[in-house]
Amino acid sequence: MDEREHGGPACDAAVVLAFSILGKRWNGLIVDVLGGGPRSFVALRRAVDGISDAMLSDRLTELADAGLISRSVEAGPPVAVTYALTPAGQDLVPVLQDLGRWASANLALSVEH
Amino acid sequence: MDEREHGGPACDAAVVLAFSILGKRWNGLIVDVLGGGPRSFVALRRAVDGISDAMLSDRLTELADAGLISRSVEAGPPVAVTYALTPAGQDLVPVLQDLGRWASANLALSVEH
Repeated sequence: MDEREHGGPACDAAVVLAFSILGKRWNGLIVDVLGGGPRSFVALRRAVDGISDAMLSDRLTELADAGLISRSVEAGPPVAVTYALTPAGQDLVPVLQDLGRWASANLALSVEH
Repeated sequence: MDEREHGGPACDAAVVLAFSILGKRWNGLIVDVLGGGPRSFVALRRAVDGISDAMLSDRLTELADAGLISRSVEAGPPVAVTYALTPAGQDLVPVLQDLGRWASANLALSVEH
């Protein structure tokens, strides 16, 4: 095959940025869970087994800042806060699932679950 | 939608591991370039614009340790060292390209190219 032009550094930078967000523990899993539909904070914490309130709160802020999730508040009582994927977040779900399948099949995990 | 079971922590761990490898600068680009066929060290350095010899050497070792690329040596003179994707590495290429497309379309890059 010839040495065709690739995505190049700009594309590499985009992938590195994606990884800087998704490479943190929980973030991929949170996006995956929200792929099943909007969730309240409490429902998310239950679905993402082992995460603390503070950590989940940090991660949700980070994902919102990156434009992957949105947060909506309904005045109560009780106040209801719901998290949902944005269109950008929704587009990521199948890619993340492909990557998860690839990683599970091809990478040796040292962590036991 | 109901709260179906997801990949869960084990799947999340696999994705985090994938990101720990691919989240480093150059690694995704190297895999992408090798997706076009085996390359010598010199050809790789030319294709991965801006990388130093030492950095490329480190990255190739890392990708080989993760089982994504293989290294073959033909006795010379001159000695010829060629790098190629393993089957695991080949399976990653389309996933990486999907992720690159998603990131380019959806993430705001602060780096100018």
